[in-house]
Amino acid sequence: MDPDTVAKAFVEHYYSTFDANRAGLVNLYQDSSMLTFEGQKIQGSQNIVTKLTSLPFQQCQHGITTVDCQPSGAGGMLVFVSGNLQLAGEQHALKFSQMFHLMPTPQGSFYVLNDIFRLNYA
Amino acid sequence: MDPDTVAKAFVEHYYSTFDANRAGLVNLYQDSSMLTFEGQKIQGSQNIVTKLTSLPFQQCQHGITTVDCQPSGAGGMLVFVSGNLQLAGEQHALKFSQMFHLMPTPQGSFYVLNDIFRLNYA
Repeated sequence: MDPDTVAKAFVEHYYSTFDANRAGLVNLYQDSSMLTFEGQKIQGSQNIVTKLTSLPFQQCQHGITTVDCQPSGAGGMLVFVSGNLQLAGEQHALKFSQMFHLMPTPQGSFYVLNDIFRLNYA
Repeated sequence: MDPDTVAKAFVEHYYSTFDANRAGLVNLYQDSSMLTFEGQKIQGSQNIVTKLTSLPFQQCQHGITTVDCQPSGAGGMLVFVSGNLQLAGEQHALKFSQMFHLMPTPQGSFYVLNDIFRLNYA
């Protein structure tokens, strides 16, 4: 599979899991994984998922606008996403940008080593 | 210097060079460098600077809103930026997001291995 196809498949899997069962994201991170969420730095899969599941909204729906990817060296892949985040009960969607650094696992899959998320305030 | 300080210094240098003398950015890239600009993939310092200097505006001013950074492994550093791009003669600034993967040089400095840029359309 070419990198763009892998990136798009990852992004679809990530956000559909986020929207349906946020706790299920734990499998995409490892102990070395880092998340910077709106400037807050969090490390390790459990801490990251604790943060994501404690965000102050229950239901949400991500819409993807763009997905760009590049090889990062050493087998890794950088994935850069822009999109919209619709929170349940809110009239207007929020715009966001997010980047992931995916690293290969011995099983031939990928995990998220780096994750940086920002809302783009209008 | 801590990574956040390095990232902020890089970002200030990058955008002040972009706004004052775009051709001077050539020193920040190498032959292996990749730029994805609004979805268009470009490789190599000369090709990248040719793209940046041929953008359809002469004068611009970047304003930085947020800078986040994380170590990417293997001595590299991921820098994620959001900000505003004011083009000369335009009333409204454009919002953008950009990520850089900085890699160390033997001289103790950094070059840009990966660069992904997107405008955030309202």
